[in-house]
Amino acid sequence: MAMTAEKAARDLARVREKRPLIHNITNYVVMQYTANALLALGASPVMAHAVDEMEEMASLADALVLNIGTLSTPWIEAMIVAGTAASRRGIPIILDPVGAGATTLRTATAVRLVDECKVTVLRGNASEVLAVTQGAGGTRGVDATNRVEDAAEAAREWARGRAIVVAITGAVDYVTDGPGVLRVRNGHPLMGRITGSGCTATTMIGAFCAVNPDALEATAGALAFYGIAGDHAARVSALPGTFAVALIDMLQSVTPDQVAREARIEP
Amino acid sequence: MAMTAEKAARDLARVREKRPLIHNITNYVVMQYTANALLALGASPVMAHAVDEMEEMASLADALVLNIGTLSTPWIEAMIVAGTAASRRGIPIILDPVGAGATTLRTATAVRLVDECKVTVLRGNASEVLAVTQGAGGTRGVDATNRVEDAAEAAREWARGRAIVVAITGAVDYVTDGPGVLRVRNGHPLMGRITGSGCTATTMIGAFCAVNPDALEATAGALAFYGIAGDHAARVSALPGTFAVALIDMLQSVTPDQVAREARIEP
Amino acid sequence: MAMTAEKAARDLARVREKRPLIHNITNYVVMQYTANALLALGASPVMAHAVDEMEEMASLADALVLNIGTLSTPWIEAMIVAGTAASRRGIPIILDPVGAGATTLRTATAVRLVDECKVTVLRGNASEVLAVTQGAGGTRGVDATNRVEDAAEAAREWARGRAIVVAITGAVDYVTDGPGVLRVRNGHPLMGRITGSGCTATTMIGAFCAVNPDALEATAGALAFYGIAGDHAARVSALPGTFAVALIDMLQSVTPDQVAREARIEP
Repeated sequence: MAMTAEKAARDLARVREKRPLIHNITNYVVMQYTANALLALGASPVMAHAVDEMEEMASLADALVLNIGTLSTPWIEAMIVAGTAASRRGIPIILDPVGAGATTLRTATAVRLVDECKVTVLRGNASEVLAVTQGAGGTRGVDATNRVEDAAEAAREWARGRAIVVAITGAVDYVTDGPGVLRVRNGHPLMGRITGSGCTATTMIGAFCAVNPDALEATAGALAFYGIAGDHAARVSALPGTFAVALIDMLQSVTPDQVAREARIEP
Repeated sequence: MAMTAEKAARDLARVREKRPLIHNITNYVVMQYTANALLALGASPVMAHAVDEMEEMASLADALVLNIGTLSTPWIEAMIVAGTAASRRGIPIILDPVGAGATTLRTATAVRLVDECKVTVLRGNASEVLAVTQGAGGTRGVDATNRVEDAAEAAREWARGRAIVVAITGAVDYVTDGPGVLRVRNGHPLMGRITGSGCTATTMIGAFCAVNPDALEATAGALAFYGIAGDHAARVSALPGTFAVALIDMLQSVTPDQVAREARIEP
Repeated sequence: MAMTAEKAARDLARVREKRPLIHNITNYVVMQYTANALLALGASPVMAHAVDEMEEMASLADALVLNIGTLSTPWIEAMIVAGTAASRRGIPIILDPVGAGATTLRTATAVRLVDECKVTVLRGNASEVLAVTQGAGGTRGVDATNRVEDAAEAAREWARGRAIVVAITGAVDYVTDGPGVLRVRNGHPLMGRITGSGCTATTMIGAFCAVNPDALEATAGALAFYGIAGDHAARVSALPGTFAVALIDMLQSVTPDQVAREARIEP
């Protein structure tokens, strides 16, 4: 456990040293917030979605974040092109299946991205992850959308043999690559009161995966770091406007030493 | 008057209890702000615009907000599909005709949405409302774009017999369904100094209409609540950056009791 | 030098008096921030990109800002239509070639906009400006993307005879119309830690050019004003979330007198 916290701290220091370029094809709602979050963390964001420049962008980036929050046909096409190029180059691809399970378009798009691209990490809440793992497995009928334990069980089964890490975020984050499981107990309920909180978690994972090829470890570390920042921001304010601002502040001010001390990553 | 304030307070409590899902097809500029405003209020926002998922989204939502601030052809099509589905289901539709009167595309789109969907509430400033009501009536030539009295007169005439509520927001908000008129005297001039202030008013109306079928009452209550939040935020800061943040804070912290005491809704 | 500071102060006062309408076709990431920045400054923002309304919008605006940060085919078309209409009307056009040099699409689009529209001011960082000036000149091979001196030399050569002002922003901003050169020594490193900082500089230039036909002077004045606001904001906070909010505050609170005293514009 302590060792995992040390690794999270080391990954944070590496991100700040290397400033990896994170290419985001993400939703309109959170673009500004996640760009500022990446800058505050110490990484370099680029937001781009034109099909015509996807190959070139993918060739510059250190990680690719795909987020289906405000989907439309040309964007799906761009995600496929970028995801294919990123798969070829072997850079990490992080998928956030926002709203999977709510509409067929979202579930089908998330499943298609997993099928056609070499997704490194899938991050969602319990119902989104259930929708993707059941959608991909051929079994539909998501009737237990909030039961984290079911989602965790399904995710672990699904990840096994797929070389993919699944992160289910919630009060406790559950991260698995099939054989391995890590639970992250950082974070604060206020994070659920601002839009883009999950999307920002996903892009943090992108930055950590860009500097650490062990995606299970990198994902847990990113979630611990992000949770610690949220916890510090909650000490600044219990109201969501100022909390959202403070969270960006904390993404810059939280140090590797604080992560080493405060990360609660458990097997 | 006091009774209306009590009803506004009751609606606020209901929103926080029921957490209605508000589907927004809105402009790029304000998406993040209005999503955070809905979360702070206690409602659940969803932003989605792909034609392919409009039917499904409309079937999940408790209200639909259509905002034409950054219009383009595929978005108009999505608004029509979502508006038609919402009309069929009988959930409230709130239309914000941003920039109607400024360009033909905006006026024509707003008029088309009113014609083809069962719009519950139209909310705009005086010139936008004049453009829509005159555009719909066949009379063009909006030459009195700032004369609130003219807009109010036109709106009342237009609403009569249409089963639609019109809200003209400004220093004093004017709300009418034809026979009835309510004036709301809450709010602060600083609200006009931040982008998306009107759009946020519109989405607040969506949340209140989701829990109160009396759209005249719900609209006045939403505007009173939003104005009270703005007034409280103005005590925090007279500068627009911090004011915008404080306004989100206040949307969470203003209580039903405060609304009952401070709402100034008059016939 | 002092005289230039006085002119910047006078331009700021004029913007606040005339409240020019600035039409922005800009990227999704910064739309809200630049709209709020223009409002705080005292100008009026409009964000619109539908090809169908570009002619009308251009006929209402006092300046046009084109920003290629999140490009796609329909937006390029809208930029060309708006730019052509604005050229015809003789209102200033400010171009921000975000990411030029990074992908062919961006470089080619920026060059095309310069070729087909009467661009008044081109504002970018050193590598973006190098990409545009070399792309337009037929010479590719941008291998010195960070060498400000090279970019400045190339920009001056390129601007000469084109009736275009080039602004290269960085630690010191370099502004040239070919014969003339002004250097602006205001601003703060924290400005580089928030997304949209350069885009906001570009839209400030739009507002200043709307009230001063001397584009060299107006550009330097806008950059000095913006830099002063950034410097004041940095006294409020060294962390990027609160800094970004404070910067909007300062765009409203910085006075012409402060600009006259603090602007560091040098030949």
